[in-house]
Amino acid sequence: MDYAIGIDLGGTQLCAVRLDAAGHVHARRRVATAATDGPATVIAQIERLIAQVSGDIERSAILGVGVASAGPVDLQAGIVRQAPTIQGWVDVPLRAILAARTGLRIELHNDGHVAALAEWRFGSGRGCAHFVYVTISTGIGGGVILDGRLVLGRHGMAAEVGHMTLQPDGPLCGCGNQGCWEALASGSALARCAAQALAQGEPSLIAAIAGGATVSGAHVALAAERGDALALTLMRREGEWIGIGLANLLHLYAPERVALGGGVTQSMALLDPHIRRVIAGRAMPPFRDIPVQVAQLGDDAGVIGAATLVL
Amino acid sequence: MDYAIGIDLGGTQLCAVRLDAAGHVHARRRVATAATDGPATVIAQIERLIAQVSGDIERSAILGVGVASAGPVDLQAGIVRQAPTIQGWVDVPLRAILAARTGLRIELHNDGHVAALAEWRFGSGRGCAHFVYVTISTGIGGGVILDGRLVLGRHGMAAEVGHMTLQPDGPLCGCGNQGCWEALASGSALARCAAQALAQGEPSLIAAIAGGATVSGAHVALAAERGDALALTLMRREGEWIGIGLANLLHLYAPERVALGGGVTQSMALLDPHIRRVIAGRAMPPFRDIPVQVAQLGDDAGVIGAATLVL
Repeated sequence: MDYAIGIDLGGTQLCAVRLDAAGHVHARRRVATAATDGPATVIAQIERLIAQVSGDIERSAILGVGVASAGPVDLQAGIVRQAPTIQGWVDVPLRAILAARTGLRIELHNDGHVAALAEWRFGSGRGCAHFVYVTISTGIGGGVILDGRLVLGRHGMAAEVGHMTLQPDGPLCGCGNQGCWEALASGSALARCAAQALAQGEPSLIAAIAGGATVSGAHVALAAERGDALALTLMRREGEWIGIGLANLLHLYAPERVALGGGVTQSMALLDPHIRRVIAGRAMPPFRDIPVQVAQLGDDAGVIGAATLVL
Repeated sequence: MDYAIGIDLGGTQLCAVRLDAAGHVHARRRVATAATDGPATVIAQIERLIAQVSGDIERSAILGVGVASAGPVDLQAGIVRQAPTIQGWVDVPLRAILAARTGLRIELHNDGHVAALAEWRFGSGRGCAHFVYVTISTGIGGGVILDGRLVLGRHGMAAEVGHMTLQPDGPLCGCGNQGCWEALASGSALARCAAQALAQGEPSLIAAIAGGATVSGAHVALAAERGDALALTLMRREGEWIGIGLANLLHLYAPERVALGGGVTQSMALLDPHIRRVIAGRAMPPFRDIPVQVAQLGDDAGVIGAATLVL
């Protein structure tokens, strides 16, 4: 039997799977990305994951490795141009490095694009000619299908949705710009807003839930579910920023459906009313009825999409 | 010889041409749009223009009329869904009305799309696989070519670039939203900012140049060319807002080239340094070198693109 290996390189997690041609997962590993240790350390992590999910499978039975990376990727050159959520990742020739180290065929693509493809083929986008997928986790990424084809643009770098400016004098983004959607509505942005409010002494359950650990978006969501006032305010603002960005994407791409993935969407029950209210208020009438729903493949969209690159 | 008639329905002007199959213009008319008088008056204007550019040509030699309209247009249904720059234009079934009144074949399309097609085929976008055209005049519209095809999206409503929110608490837009690119960077927005500054008593040549008429973007540009401090500040802000919107489009569509049309671009010498500075500051490095240039077909892009719809 032949296998494909998929790697999903994100700012928080590194995932790997080994998939057969029918799409079944035979091995899976997940580690925290050494996101502050520089490219060499992260590349070594990827190598270890490839070895682990390969197990004792014969080398000749492995068709190759598909890698989904955060940030714009130059498809032709096989270079990660910039991964704002991972320190030091600027112009990393990841395809050539991994090919040299593993001897395997390597395909490299933007993680949002790859997840969009997977959702469109196997998940929430099935049957759409025009489909937008957005993933909201450490950063914000996405991919767009128009007329049944993945939107690539120059060097395959289109659909960098997280780096739309939505507030020109807004918070600094990992990419260097101010007020990007990613800097306003990612899970990291939610956590940062919570930490700032707590530092200013606002009373909240969030600190107790975090229990001394660095506050995360998940802590905020948990506190909001328990009725914490600060957390509910933060989640309302989060939903509103998601809605502002989505209203822009509706006007720009006019999809038939939008799917949201990533960790933040685990709190869709809290976010959804705010997202809908903002879209109803900001989108022109013919764009307001475009359905926005939660993606179906969950955390696996990126890594399964990556593996299918070599199938 | 066979002819095609083109109509460009904008918030300020209504243009008509009669074109032969080789693309030569045989008749041309231009009137001010009765933009505040309701759809019936404007439709009567369009009928008159069709009659005027038809002249005494035999009816059988006229292949049809292509109409480019501001705002999202439902291609399948032939309906102008909403033209924010023309009062009362919501769900106007313009294709059916004009077909019934003229007996001619009518094709209806969004003006930005049509102008983008014309620029891509005959002007600034020649040779590009991925091309973005933006027109900045009374409103802001545009069209996008990706992989050599016009981006249409659901009902042909994609690329409503003017209705990206860029400042959530910004000025009210004609579409009902706040802080749209159109409300911040259109010629109307420039004129409104100038009028507000003058009303607050800021000293400026603009009032004298306007000479009692309502201040327009062109008056501001003229004053800036003469070194007027207020006008220069307004043009700097105009260029910055254009740059912010363009940086977003670079990230979203990753074109090989961007062309700017519309009246505001007559002041490109003043705007260009600010546009470039903002793109250099806000776009991620791999997007910064995408060329931004002035469109080549000028005011004719929309109306010629419209006529080619029936050729």
